Amino acid sequence: MSSHHIVKEKQEPALIIANGESCSEELLGQLLEWSPYIVVLDHAIYRVLDLGIKIDAWLGDFDQHHDFEDVRSRQHPLEIIGTPDQEKTDLEKGIDFLIERGFPAANIVWATGRRQDHAVTNVTNLVRYKDQIKLVMFDDYSKIFPLTGVFEKWYVSGTPISLIPVGIVEGIETSGLKYNLNKETLTMGHRTGNSNEAESDGMVRISAQKGDLLIMECWDL
Amino acid sequence: MSSHHIVKEKQEPALIIANGESCSEELLGQLLEWSPYIVVLDHAIYRVLDLGIKIDAWLGDFDQHHDFEDVRSRQHPLEIIGTPDQEKTDLEKGIDFLIERGFPAANIVWATGRRQDHAVTNVTNLVRYKDQIKLVMFDDYSKIFPLTGVFEKWYVSGTPISLIPVGIVEGIETSGLKYNLNKETLTMGHRTGNSNEAESDGMVRISAQKGDLLIMECWDL
Repeated sequence: MSSHHIVKEKQEPALIIANGESCSEELLGQLLEWSPYIVVLDHAIYRVLDLGIKIDAWLGDFDQHHDFEDVRSRQHPLEIIGTPDQEKTDLEKGIDFLIERGFPAANIVWATGRRQDHAVTNVTNLVRYKDQIKLVMFDDYSKIFPLTGVFEKWYVSGTPISLIPVGIVEGIETSGLKYNLNKETLTMGHRTGNSNEAESDGMVRISAQKGDLLIMECWDL
Repeated sequence: MSSHHIVKEKQEPALIIANGESCSEELLGQLLEWSPYIVVLDHAIYRVLDLGIKIDAWLGDFDQHHDFEDVRSRQHPLEIIGTPDQEKTDLEKGIDFLIERGFPAANIVWATGRRQDHAVTNVTNLVRYKDQIKLVMFDDYSKIFPLTGVFEKWYVSGTPISLIPVGIVEGIETSGLKYNLNKETLTMGHRTGNSNEAESDGMVRISAQKGDLLIMECWDL
């Protein structure tokens, strides 16, 4: 894993390492390639310290015992920030922190898996930040981001692309997918756009008139 | 794992084994204890055959190659049902099959983890069946079921209980929780009831006037 002692310009996305299932070292290595500003959430600190990564900030409510001196001795300099707010999840605190610090974008890992209450909340909460910071969540099987404005990207034929509405999303229009939508409504729990795919090598275009849509690129291993 | 050659009376919940992350053998063993009617979805069949469990039905769209004779030789009798419908997920097909066969209840495992598009869809789709069949989804960290009518159950103090709205849920009233709700609205992606807990040893009561609410009992390992 990379070590870095450079001034960070906030041009590259920051990286939030949350407290769910760890991802592969390969995925983490890709996200570390450009020496991002790294925020680690709560108990994930110990798993991250064991990986020997240089991190920048550690956020947590610290309601359980931590040996702060030991952590500091293993990671210096390190900004340690107590966030006792019970109304917010750890991930929300991490994202709010990056918004306050002026970061325009962040990648998120270790936010899925394990407890489903945390995982489903972490994934679906991405939509609430869509006008404030550009967020992309990764795990070993998934790349997840909210739709903002019109999404356009070139895909290889057959790439799995799922449209997951967080609540009700109206006026969805797509082109370039195997099953295109034409001003249609998707409703979580009742009608979703799971397991669609790019129809051919070329541009996929996705837009919606109202509501919060997640786009997921997922794959089997 | 148990073997059974008894007539099944549909009094116990059936068991659906989906195609996500495998659960612990301990959890699976608990769910097998009463010799449920077992439906296995698509590619999960090979992992299940390796466990030596006696299963009843295998559902799949079978769009990839399977050696049906080999499967039959390892599992007899076995009902094999092709379900080519592209509009439904494998789990929806499994639940619809059990409703058609007259089962009043089913447990679901291996439906979370891996691809987030499948996991989020599987979890949130539970709500659409709440008036047709009693469903409970399990993984190693979670027990998930939809609210129907008024939910009342005795819990040990501190048991984590999360209220996850699938879309907008209005008029939520609770008692017995650490953070009770009084005719409040929860909105997925914006305001959820993640990480609540039983306030003391005693009854927890949850009701809602409108919308689809998931109740999740989750734990850290």
